[in-house]
Amino acid sequence: MNHPTSRDNGAVSLVRTLVANGVEVCFTNPGTSEMHFVSALDRIDGMRCVLGLFEGVVTGAADGYYRMADKPASTLLHLGPGLGNGLANLHNAKKAGSGIVNIVGEHATYHLACNAPLTTDIEAIATPMSNWVRTSRSSKDVAVDGAAAITEARQPPGRIATLVLPADTAWGEGGGVAQAAAPAARRAVSDDAIEAAARALTNGRPAALLLGDLAVREDALQLAGRIASKTGCRVLSEYALPRLQRGAGRVLTQRVPYPVDASLAMLNDIAELVLVGSKVPVAFFAYPGKPSVLTPDACQITTLAELADDQLAALRALAERLGASSIDAVHIAQAQRPGLPNGALTPEGIGAVLGALLPENAIVVDEAVTTGRGFGKPTAGAPPHDWLSIVGGSIGFGLPAATGAAIGAPGRTVIALEGDGSAMYTLQALWTMARESLDVKVLIFANRRYQILQGELANVGAGTPGRKASSMLSLDRPDLDWVLLARGHGVDAARVDDLDGLAKAFGRALATPGPCLIEVVF
Amino acid sequence: MNHPTSRDNGAVSLVRTLVANGVEVCFTNPGTSEMHFVSALDRIDGMRCVLGLFEGVVTGAADGYYRMADKPASTLLHLGPGLGNGLANLHNAKKAGSGIVNIVGEHATYHLACNAPLTTDIEAIATPMSNWVRTSRSSKDVAVDGAAAITEARQPPGRIATLVLPADTAWGEGGGVAQAAAPAARRAVSDDAIEAAARALTNGRPAALLLGDLAVREDALQLAGRIASKTGCRVLSEYALPRLQRGAGRVLTQRVPYPVDASLAMLNDIAELVLVGSKVPVAFFAYPGKPSVLTPDACQITTLAELADDQLAALRALAERLGASSIDAVHIAQAQRPGLPNGALTPEGIGAVLGALLPENAIVVDEAVTTGRGFGKPTAGAPPHDWLSIVGGSIGFGLPAATGAAIGAPGRTVIALEGDGSAMYTLQALWTMARESLDVKVLIFANRRYQILQGELANVGAGTPGRKASSMLSLDRPDLDWVLLARGHGVDAARVDDLDGLAKAFGRALATPGPCLIEVVF
Repeated sequence: MNHPTSRDNGAVSLVRTLVANGVEVCFTNPGTSEMHFVSALDRIDGMRCVLGLFEGVVTGAADGYYRMADKPASTLLHLGPGLGNGLANLHNAKKAGSGIVNIVGEHATYHLACNAPLTTDIEAIATPMSNWVRTSRSSKDVAVDGAAAITEARQPPGRIATLVLPADTAWGEGGGVAQAAAPAARRAVSDDAIEAAARALTNGRPAALLLGDLAVREDALQLAGRIASKTGCRVLSEYALPRLQRGAGRVLTQRVPYPVDASLAMLNDIAELVLVGSKVPVAFFAYPGKPSVLTPDACQITTLAELADDQLAALRALAERLGASSIDAVHIAQAQRPGLPNGALTPEGIGAVLGALLPENAIVVDEAVTTGRGFGKPTAGAPPHDWLSIVGGSIGFGLPAATGAAIGAPGRTVIALEGDGSAMYTLQALWTMARESLDVKVLIFANRRYQILQGELANVGAGTPGRKASSMLSLDRPDLDWVLLARGHGVDAARVDDLDGLAKAFGRALATPGPCLIEVVF
Repeated sequence: MNHPTSRDNGAVSLVRTLVANGVEVCFTNPGTSEMHFVSALDRIDGMRCVLGLFEGVVTGAADGYYRMADKPASTLLHLGPGLGNGLANLHNAKKAGSGIVNIVGEHATYHLACNAPLTTDIEAIATPMSNWVRTSRSSKDVAVDGAAAITEARQPPGRIATLVLPADTAWGEGGGVAQAAAPAARRAVSDDAIEAAARALTNGRPAALLLGDLAVREDALQLAGRIASKTGCRVLSEYALPRLQRGAGRVLTQRVPYPVDASLAMLNDIAELVLVGSKVPVAFFAYPGKPSVLTPDACQITTLAELADDQLAALRALAERLGASSIDAVHIAQAQRPGLPNGALTPEGIGAVLGALLPENAIVVDEAVTTGRGFGKPTAGAPPHDWLSIVGGSIGFGLPAATGAAIGAPGRTVIALEGDGSAMYTLQALWTMARESLDVKVLIFANRRYQILQGELANVGAGTPGRKASSMLSLDRPDLDWVLLARGHGVDAARVDDLDGLAKAFGRALATPGPCLIEVVF
């Protein structure tokens, strides 16, 4: 064997490059072709390695991490099929603008011609869910390629950069450490854009700001509240947001709802819509006879700031242009918690328990789907917290993202709100929570059905479900037992069947460090 | 709403087309965009709908089904990310030559321009793991497109056909029922190929048949045994086979082993290798300083029958050419079971328990990875059974494939041999086994590590694992509890920690209808 020692091979140069450029976490699910990279991770300080037992856990965790740390983690994935298992949560991350540096092991370059069983076209698999894909051609290039991947992942908004690492470029002689470009500054918006937005909000027609992305962080919201105070415009936010900062003392937004009829009704009278880090609202799905675009035909759209723009500076400039910089914001949420409710479990009651107990500085990861639709109101006056939604719409996001969020924001409590159907896609994340002793409290809303689909079947005009359709939309026969599933993964768990039980179990969970799961059966 | 009733829409025409062409099972994990297809499944008789709670379960089940039923099932997947979750097991199915008709829901055609959250390039996601991809352009075309997909999936060897079904082509007016082409006959091999194989086996140099695909079914094996009797050639089989028929009274093959050194040693003295439904053996992975191709440089390769050829007829013709048609075969496995062993759990002891108790006509799905490497010998004399391996090498195959195999071969007992690491990728299959009351007995070999990788780390020359690498290759801290995981999915389970316990638990499982799981801790 004439390959270099692990001190100076390509894998070492890549790990050193990641660490030197501030990539501090690697979410991994390795295989044979990644063994030199694993060995390099083993020997080099500065990288926390977090094992996931399924690749969707790995990629979803990287998404959650980015949202809280505002910088990319790396992932380590095994060949094309391993990357395939991670695609759904890469999709979610891409739609959320979460930067990730994927390292995907590949067969040694000379081995590809053999068409061994695990041979695939990795670049083709990566491309649909990546913004940038490159295969290292030589071990000397690996560091430079890794630095390029980091540069890409840090572009605003964050991007998915996928580096394919053939085994021989990992074990061949390395090329030292490479430097990524400094994170790019967000683009300044033009004076024209500010002027256009100012006019849209002051021309006397019913107007609204629609906030997304970074425009729903605390400082930006405060500016939006001042602009609303000055102009009387409404303050809306997109349905799905990577990280909404909300709670007592922060400016409240009206969230565009998921159901098409409700969103059409909300947006019905808006004549001027100003986009800040957001896009024109569209229906999640098409429904026969209903529009895809949710704004009225006559609504005038003005873009103040796109995703890659400096949304905070744009709002600041707009507030200044409007003379709203120093006035008091409107729509500030008052500190106020609902009383603890009793009785049978209902979505409203669960929302009240959350509102009553949500701890200060909590991170809520919301994949509650139907059950959670009403949680906004009862939690609005809870102490300040972050609310992370599933932006790409592919369920199986929540448990992995909660895992990554906990690692990206140490010391904060993460509350994962999960539909039972959604949680099943990536339940293996529970084990990583246990291994890493993460402070994640998981609430599983066990209605034992894909409830959203039972509604959607009617919404698309497909009629009432018969025996076979009901069976395909139900999670019963047998019921899943989430207490056993959690304990099987090493996570403590309890089941509750009324609001009092939920309040007690949730209170206990919040008082106890580490992960736990509460199955809420209703 | 001016869409047609569910009696005559595109989805109905597609389901009717599937049923009319003998596609009897749909493994499903639907979402909103598939609701009309679900509704059509609901109303039309002749299609068994089997829900999986994760898409890898769905696609892996379709693979297992094909291997036993020798005909394609359909799958129903939700948009690009749902297809993404199914890719790894589509990869395995494609490499195994298992035909599958994937139906992937897509947004309504006019909705795509909106770039809604779940919008992706589905064809691009499908292409790497499909042999054929088409998007229906109109509801009138759906039946014809579905028939084309069935025609493709039934090509020998089976192919992965992926039909993308925009929601409006499902709900728009349908085009009736379409007919797929009759399943194509396998190609006859040429007289030249038979003559060349005959010469290779009789020129006096050390020779071997290497069997794969359909050449390891009972009748083909019998012919190979006669040819071996006549010529003295060895009878080898590929490492990973879609469906090996073995057990008492059947011709035994020598399986090319996974470890490179062992396979090199086995093939070292072969001067003439005749391929029958197989490929030149190559290493699963590349290792520094070791060859990728496992046959000696001087070995002459002769192809008797390719995958798409009629392998059985080719062997019959070869036997006839050699005058071996009526002689007794060699290498016939004698009916013989090992005694039930006692004491501590070892791979050898587990193999003996399997050999002692394997029921007649069992279907063994083998994803035991390291633990199972020695199971061949002690089970060779058990009553006749089928042995299904993971051909594409992407772990997470076993539990889904066992699910599909049970549905594809009703009345037969399925034994799923699983490494704990492998089983974790698609453990949701347990729930489908419970819901469908499938007679699947799952053995989890819980060594609590990716043991194969601990070996591979050394094999690739990456050194001895330190703290971080050990941690990435271990499933401990916390230990998974498979008894709880199984019961959480509704499957009865037991844990054993010695051979006596395993024999008793396995015996009980075989005597009890329905699924169960045994966690074998060692």
